Amino acid sequence: MDDIEAEPTRRSAPTLRDVARRAEVSVATASRALTSDYPVAESTRARVLRAVEDLNYAVTSRPPKRNQAASHIAMVVSDVVSPLRSHVATGVAEAAGDAGRLCSVYITGGDLQREEQVFARLEEQDDLDAVILVGGVELTDAYEQRMSAHARALHARGAQLVLCGRPPLPAGVPALVVEYDNRGGAYAATSHLLSLGHRRILTLTGPERSTTTIGRMAGYRSAHEDFGVELDPSLVIPCRADRSGGYQGCRQALADRLEFTAIFTHNDVMASGALAALRESGLTVPGDISLVGYDNIPVAQELSPPLTTVYMPHEEMGKAAVRLALERPEPGSGRERQLLGTHIVIRASVRPLPASHHPAQ
Amino acid sequence: MDDIEAEPTRRSAPTLRDVARRAEVSVATASRALTSDYPVAESTRARVLRAVEDLNYAVTSRPPKRNQAASHIAMVVSDVVSPLRSHVATGVAEAAGDAGRLCSVYITGGDLQREEQVFARLEEQDDLDAVILVGGVELTDAYEQRMSAHARALHARGAQLVLCGRPPLPAGVPALVVEYDNRGGAYAATSHLLSLGHRRILTLTGPERSTTTIGRMAGYRSAHEDFGVELDPSLVIPCRADRSGGYQGCRQALADRLEFTAIFTHNDVMASGALAALRESGLTVPGDISLVGYDNIPVAQELSPPLTTVYMPHEEMGKAAVRLALERPEPGSGRERQLLGTHIVIRASVRPLPASHHPAQ
Repeated sequence: MDDIEAEPTRRSAPTLRDVARRAEVSVATASRALTSDYPVAESTRARVLRAVEDLNYAVTSRPPKRNQAASHIAMVVSDVVSPLRSHVATGVAEAAGDAGRLCSVYITGGDLQREEQVFARLEEQDDLDAVILVGGVELTDAYEQRMSAHARALHARGAQLVLCGRPPLPAGVPALVVEYDNRGGAYAATSHLLSLGHRRILTLTGPERSTTTIGRMAGYRSAHEDFGVELDPSLVIPCRADRSGGYQGCRQALADRLEFTAIFTHNDVMASGALAALRESGLTVPGDISLVGYDNIPVAQELSPPLTTVYMPHEEMGKAAVRLALERPEPGSGRERQLLGTHIVIRASVRPLPASHHPAQ
Repeated sequence: MDDIEAEPTRRSAPTLRDVARRAEVSVATASRALTSDYPVAESTRARVLRAVEDLNYAVTSRPPKRNQAASHIAMVVSDVVSPLRSHVATGVAEAAGDAGRLCSVYITGGDLQREEQVFARLEEQDDLDAVILVGGVELTDAYEQRMSAHARALHARGAQLVLCGRPPLPAGVPALVVEYDNRGGAYAATSHLLSLGHRRILTLTGPERSTTTIGRMAGYRSAHEDFGVELDPSLVIPCRADRSGGYQGCRQALADRLEFTAIFTHNDVMASGALAALRESGLTVPGDISLVGYDNIPVAQELSPPLTTVYMPHEEMGKAAVRLALERPEPGSGRERQLLGTHIVIRASVRPLPASHHPAQ
């Protein structure tokens, strides 16, 4: 216990050379012994580790490489519980690691003030390659202005702001954009249902003003147009974008006695909630109601029945964001904005509607 | 586009005062307009935002508060895809936010060298309260020595190392520990099965040398002892701790024609894999085989049948780690180590074994 209290008063940091001398090995051997990937005799390693302990050598306190300016990629995100964001974070971390960069994730809890504090911190850092901002938000003037200011502040320090699944900023703002095709994915999901004869497709959407919702609603609408099916606006129910949102939205639709043969939810966890609500009402999927989700998160294949959904390249999005940031495309090169494709994953939650069920058009 | 290229050459940073002057408002109003939580007339806000843009004012570049030494909590973790780790991260972020601290998560991909790079970076930072290291690892001498060195280096800078679900370090090393009760949880799961008459309980474990596995195996063994049931070592199958590990382990057990009436998997995603393997073999849960998981992650309630499992206080663990770090307990106070309890969550994947099925003991 005395050790602990004495700790903060120690001054001159021992070097790896001190460790090697004490362990009676070469500096190279001491270094190898401390990097567990390299083969070193166990007795040698033990001697080096004892020297480390005796000297209180901080294994990793190498001098900072200040001339190697850029070595760090930060991701800013509301949470890492959503499968979307945790998989994007995984992609960012992998690509950052492959490029020899460290990766840190700042969690804001969706709190704007905390997001601002994070930017304040990041905009002071000298070794930052990029800030990757992930996840849909409401597109407001305040958002545009705030993010434009951050993009400029980062750019002035040689770092890139990358918007990932976020609304793009006005032309001329030095920000990079990696998006997934919300409209295309929702179009694919909706037209899958329409092509199997469904005509009244309930949709449980996310927050109305989120750009993700706006994109997915555009795909849902445009599939209806292309199939010549008039859309009943009462079939569009905005919900919280989580399991209980999907559950409540579906209960609401059933309580209101809305007529529908299929449900398209804007994400898979909402689909799991809708499935629970249908089951409680004695309705089967796909026997009574067909169900399509969005995201293809792991839970989709565990549902009964396994869920037909839209594949989202989450990890690939994180990787693309890192690659794009490190590539530093020339402004105006057309490379500043990348759109990643999506596709439908067909499982067992949709059935073709028998012709007799088709309402007259 | 010209804007972008001109950006890095600008020199003196405009101040909030410049913004206020240009927008013809007071500095206080300009500040309020840039903090979206405060009410400001939209026209005023628009003027301020225009001034921000015109001046290229970096909204958040406040002078660093260097005298407020500690303002940042870092978490170091292999990944944020595992529900365990993403929920611990959520707890850390929430408690950090409540305490007015920023929270960042460093993702190492389980790569030791990257973990060392992260520590090297963190050990240079002046405003760090704590480093929270999360997730089970193999307990080796090299691990102990390495982590002890980091604990000392951080402590010397006034920061705390908190081990969360990681093996504790030798006495005298200035590290805090927050653990969940692996042994107690596995004991509860196994004795639940034993008390319902199951005598041959297959267990699909994680990596054999992980301290998490060791703790859970201890609970599984000790429940058998307390019930006076001899354990058949062939019923213990080490697997990869993911869905495909659970699937393969269960397929293996079925192919080897092992006799068992119940399965205890060391986590819920392994249980989902085992469930898929059982279903492929035409076996029902709980009709033919009872199944208990561990962790109570969201997928547990989506399985068919909903999974009986062990509740793990993941978010609470993250919060406890932050609270403990900020409390800075006196060495030797007995507060440096906290053990969080677990309990079983009974759903629908276990059935009592009829007395006729009980093998003779």
